[in-house]
Amino acid sequence: MSSHLFDQAIALTPLAPNLYRGETSEAFENMVGPFGGSTAATLLNAVLLHPQRLGDPVSLTVNFAGPVAAGEFEIEATPLRTNRSTQHWLILQKQNGEVVTSATAFFANRRETLTEQPLGPPAAPAPQTLQRIDLSIRNWFRQYDFRFVHGIPLMRRPADQPADTESLLWVRDFPERALDYASLTALGDVFAPRIFMLRETFTPSGTVSMTHYFHATRDELEKVGTGFVLGQARASRLHANYSDQVAHLWSEDGVLLLTSTQSVYFKE
Amino acid sequence: MSSHLFDQAIALTPLAPNLYRGETSEAFENMVGPFGGSTAATLLNAVLLHPQRLGDPVSLTVNFAGPVAAGEFEIEATPLRTNRSTQHWLILQKQNGEVVTSATAFFANRRETLTEQPLGPPAAPAPQTLQRIDLSIRNWFRQYDFRFVHGIPLMRRPADQPADTESLLWVRDFPERALDYASLTALGDVFAPRIFMLRETFTPSGTVSMTHYFHATRDELEKVGTGFVLGQARASRLHANYSDQVAHLWSEDGVLLLTSTQSVYFKE
Repeated sequence: MSSHLFDQAIALTPLAPNLYRGETSEAFENMVGPFGGSTAATLLNAVLLHPQRLGDPVSLTVNFAGPVAAGEFEIEATPLRTNRSTQHWLILQKQNGEVVTSATAFFANRRETLTEQPLGPPAAPAPQTLQRIDLSIRNWFRQYDFRFVHGIPLMRRPADQPADTESLLWVRDFPERALDYASLTALGDVFAPRIFMLRETFTPSGTVSMTHYFHATRDELEKVGTGFVLGQARASRLHANYSDQVAHLWSEDGVLLLTSTQSVYFKE
Repeated sequence: MSSHLFDQAIALTPLAPNLYRGETSEAFENMVGPFGGSTAATLLNAVLLHPQRLGDPVSLTVNFAGPVAAGEFEIEATPLRTNRSTQHWLILQKQNGEVVTSATAFFANRRETLTEQPLGPPAAPAPQTLQRIDLSIRNWFRQYDFRFVHGIPLMRRPADQPADTESLLWVRDFPERALDYASLTALGDVFAPRIFMLRETFTPSGTVSMTHYFHATRDELEKVGTGFVLGQARASRLHANYSDQVAHLWSEDGVLLLTSTQSVYFKE
């Protein structure tokens, strides 16, 4: 196994057809249980490792149903339907027989087609010109190299900037690791709850459902390698305990790799 | 039962615990099988009708796994996890024992909190000032009153407008029907595949996965009543057979009711 902590965090052992065992990683601990991005990557990994898998991930939805306790868990990954060049999956993570996370995924063999990118990356200084930010109050923060352009959670904004919910940042694995579908899945969840852009003190909050659309094909992931990705996240509305988040991740040369949305609980 | 064709289309008969039977509706026929929005609303309806349901829908992801044949189907709606004020569901639509559609849904009791709406509606003329458009080449189009501001699929654009993937339109049920979670679910899928904004002739295309985040609480749905909703849809990237779509629906008075995303197949 790779010695990289991310590979250790998402590692799974096959137990039976469609059934895997894994263990939470201290390195990716968040407030209550693991960083959701590493949980999502672990669920995707069950399909990536599955002998019946067809093609590459196109979409992934992960529902965070209950806290994942430190220790072992099981993942059931079941192909619900296999067509000629597409495949639909159901993925359940359980502890003590109870569902803690559920997911659906869509995989496909992709071919060359028309290619258009209406949404280009926002202007941002190069990552090398920005300082790495130390957000080490949670273990999982230390597994990433964060270079914020703007929108640091829970920080007082300069008076000349209006309060809004947008964050713009460069990020990559720390230490560096070549981008793949698992790490892109985790990177899509590095944005803090958008409610923290409107507040200066912590209040309980957490993702309840997250959906990733993978634009990046394998050749595009390879091209990124260990480079940074530019992430932008915004809320459209925060209302009655729930907020959405719409996020995009681009490569350093401006290729849109991922569109991601979340529904996020906040207490008050 | 209501005599409205939409209510007839999403109607379900309980067969056993967690199990319902329904039938496709000719009124909501699309090219191959029913309009995806009515299928999504039917799956949500299985939870809305379920005796163990807790609260209102917050998120819904629907995966269109295979064609739904005209005729009967079964829906299994299973609560995967019930917490104090939240509930996670798995919903499977089957024909002849085979999964044709899968879904996960998150429901919750919602309370008053901070409320902010960073994303306001785009400027648009009032719906009453725009002509209803006749798109009656498919049965389901006739169930809606479409008033396009711009971005009619497969139409040549005026030379002074750049080609882009955005549609902006007012829409409501036809005949009028008071908005509820089921009809909002269907309305979130009325946008054609974004590839049709870049082409003037039809090519095979279809949604593979759709995620709705319901911002609207019950009081907000009631306030809309039979009014129009303003829908905006855009693609961020179209690449290697798949495109995303990011869409929002606002009420006539500018309240964001729904954030919706899709992953959409296109052939070439």
